[in-house]
Amino acid sequence: MRTLEVTDVGAACCAPLLREPLGAADAEQLAGALRALADPTRLRLLSIVAASDGQEACVCDLTAPVGLSQPTVSHHLKILTQAGFLTRSKRGTWAYYALAPGALDRITAFLATP
Amino acid sequence: MRTLEVTDVGAACCAPLLREPLGAADAEQLAGALRALADPTRLRLLSIVAASDGQEACVCDLTAPVGLSQPTVSHHLKILTQAGFLTRSKRGTWAYYALAPGALDRITAFLATP
Repeated sequence: MRTLEVTDVGAACCAPLLREPLGAADAEQLAGALRALADPTRLRLLSIVAASDGQEACVCDLTAPVGLSQPTVSHHLKILTQAGFLTRSKRGTWAYYALAPGALDRITAFLATP
Repeated sequence: MRTLEVTDVGAACCAPLLREPLGAADAEQLAGALRALADPTRLRLLSIVAASDGQEACVCDLTAPVGLSQPTVSHHLKILTQAGFLTRSKRGTWAYYALAPGALDRITAFLATP
């Protein structure tokens, strides 16, 4: 199975979605990544992390901006982490979430028009 | 409410998602567009249309490649059309679907990293 790698796209004239019909396996993989993004709370959390210093934020600073409980925020962060958009590290009491390099680029490379 | 316009992005240093925390209204709008894309059949249909001559295809040529009935395919095409990714025109017996210019660009502009 071909993976959603930017390097796979870089050598071609344009993005796979427009270059040739997407195969079933690639379509499943891309749809799964898009499902993880396709939620307003998750987009806001990802955006807050991405706009933070060092593109990293403590979970303790993420609940207030979206106005949700910590368990709910943690649930959304887990989905973003499992989909590869965020990485998680624990330091002391708190979990910190950082933007995973390249994850959004892999999505945009597939959707970009020439 | 700020709209998801590419021109809004072009003047800035980088994409809104990374520039500043996404507001609730923008997050709802972007999530809605991503939900329309986040389905493997819809991604394949969009990809087939985009890779067709003139980035346009007859619905009659779209059922066989995805192996689904015409009502099911039409349902997916309707979701993509309502979300603004495709345009629909009827010529004779058949409906033709074309890639809507700029629609994917508006998504990638919001998700792109500098």
